[in-house]
Amino acid sequence: MKHPSSVSLVEVGPRDGLQNEARRLESTDKITLIKGLIDAGLRRIEVASFVSPKAVPQMADAEAVIAGLPARDDLTLIGLVLNMRGYERALATRRADGGGINEIGCVAVASNSFALRNQGQSRDESLSIAGDIIRRAHGDGLSAQITLSAVYGCPFEGEIDPATVIDMARRAADFEPDEIALADTIGVAVPAQVRDLFGSVREAVPHIPLRAHFHNTRNTGIANAWAALEAGVATLDASVGGLGGCPFAPAATGNIATEDLVYLLHRSAVTTDADLDQLIALTGWIGKKLGRDLPAQVSRAGPFPPANLKEAKLKAGGVQPERKRP
Amino acid sequence: MKHPSSVSLVEVGPRDGLQNEARRLESTDKITLIKGLIDAGLRRIEVASFVSPKAVPQMADAEAVIAGLPARDDLTLIGLVLNMRGYERALATRRADGGGINEIGCVAVASNSFALRNQGQSRDESLSIAGDIIRRAHGDGLSAQITLSAVYGCPFEGEIDPATVIDMARRAADFEPDEIALADTIGVAVPAQVRDLFGSVREAVPHIPLRAHFHNTRNTGIANAWAALEAGVATLDASVGGLGGCPFAPAATGNIATEDLVYLLHRSAVTTDADLDQLIALTGWIGKKLGRDLPAQVSRAGPFPPANLKEAKLKAGGVQPERKRP
Repeated sequence: MKHPSSVSLVEVGPRDGLQNEARRLESTDKITLIKGLIDAGLRRIEVASFVSPKAVPQMADAEAVIAGLPARDDLTLIGLVLNMRGYERALATRRADGGGINEIGCVAVASNSFALRNQGQSRDESLSIAGDIIRRAHGDGLSAQITLSAVYGCPFEGEIDPATVIDMARRAADFEPDEIALADTIGVAVPAQVRDLFGSVREAVPHIPLRAHFHNTRNTGIANAWAALEAGVATLDASVGGLGGCPFAPAATGNIATEDLVYLLHRSAVTTDADLDQLIALTGWIGKKLGRDLPAQVSRAGPFPPANLKEAKLKAGGVQPERKRP
Repeated sequence: MKHPSSVSLVEVGPRDGLQNEARRLESTDKITLIKGLIDAGLRRIEVASFVSPKAVPQMADAEAVIAGLPARDDLTLIGLVLNMRGYERALATRRADGGGINEIGCVAVASNSFALRNQGQSRDESLSIAGDIIRRAHGDGLSAQITLSAVYGCPFEGEIDPATVIDMARRAADFEPDEIALADTIGVAVPAQVRDLFGSVREAVPHIPLRAHFHNTRNTGIANAWAALEAGVATLDASVGGLGGCPFAPAATGNIATEDLVYLLHRSAVTTDADLDQLIALTGWIGKKLGRDLPAQVSRAGPFPPANLKEAKLKAGGVQPERKRP
């Protein structure tokens, strides 16, 4: 298998990440975070969801955050939307200067139990509603994509039959979304499953671009990302710092960390638009704001080779002649 | 690429893991840990190193620990040895009942600076000394293998030329070791490197079994393990709980966690001798003894599907009919 030579990243920290953080951030801090991500080279960012503030208090200030973001031709700001009311809110963020949400993200859940619990919709309802939203968004001139969530497993139903996911992908394709994402929402997938499921879905909907979304809940997230790449997927979700899962919570659910993924990609000669050093600096800042160490490992251990390599080498005596030859 | 259908695990927690833990354990606790690993199905365990107690205080009680371990025909107890003095100590643990160290692990370092810093030997010295030890061990009727360490990078020298590693593997093969391991000692490798290096070394020494050793320092460890498997490697090191790297230390250096690897393997239909539930229980116990949460993620999030799946499903309403069909 041959992986793509460049990867397009979708930064989901401000939405999927933050909504699972215990501490609520000020809108101004969220704006600083998103601007920092833009400065770090990220150009496609899931900035908010338009859901009930009671269900997700962290997203209550979606409009205020988006109002503080720049209008740029090279920027895609994704708003997650689960119903038509949320869509109207996302649409209302569009500004005369071209700013605001310019891509709609919809979700259909592969598990019926999870769909009912997570968004108060049955599986079929979630798919049908996503279809309505995608058609509306396209009519309004916005990009619109769909994430099939919990495709590798559900905490209530256990295994999900790949045939269910493939069938949903076919039905989702009828809505002509700009992209279909397969999400390991609860972080249970392993690379062999990822390879097989992307292979099957690619075959079922060959004309629709695919995206992959992983959580590192069971430490398989980065391996799954690599497996997706090897299956030909060139667009991956990640969240700066691995935002979203407290390491001490019983069910840590952080997304794969953007900097960990970028480290792997760049050292594999796979290019991205991201700047690793700036991502690491941003993780330090947001970790302080949230009052906890974030799970990203590259931010903790540092990139490689280290910036102070020459100094380290001198210190170790590595440039001196060998002490003795046997 | 097709991965092996079964994997042989080498548990390195009691040595590589513990020696990097700040808190020193009682010998009795180490014995309990190793017996717990045996109960969890592990049959090849690196139980101690025979090095200067000044350099590695955690290993000062190597003899006492080994004296407390059972003699079993199906058990391989590895002692790590860096010089002939250490070898004599390992040999002296052999007991009349068949117990004691029955496999010697040697180390040759791919980076000269790292070799000097880590074991006070130049690269060539480390290789030559390993050769002497392997010949002695074989003469004494013991298994003996060699680990080539820091093969993907060195904190002092940076990149390591793969040609250096391939050349070392060829020279190591002349000692007729029972196995050659390639170790990402400082946790910098990425899957593409792993695949390429194992491919090259396999070609250079086709007659010697290969083993892989990864640290999860930059969150690439599990992805690297999968890449090694896909490159045909069927023996992997791991440490229970991911022992060895404090998550709050600037350079976390834990081995990949045995339970995280086992989770991935079993869900990929790759068999091992390990029992996941017992590993998780053991991690809880050793974490308490060390006074910290260990980095293993599966022990935190739990296996999948969860044991209480039926209950969870009932609670979520997933077995009830869908509320409404669109």
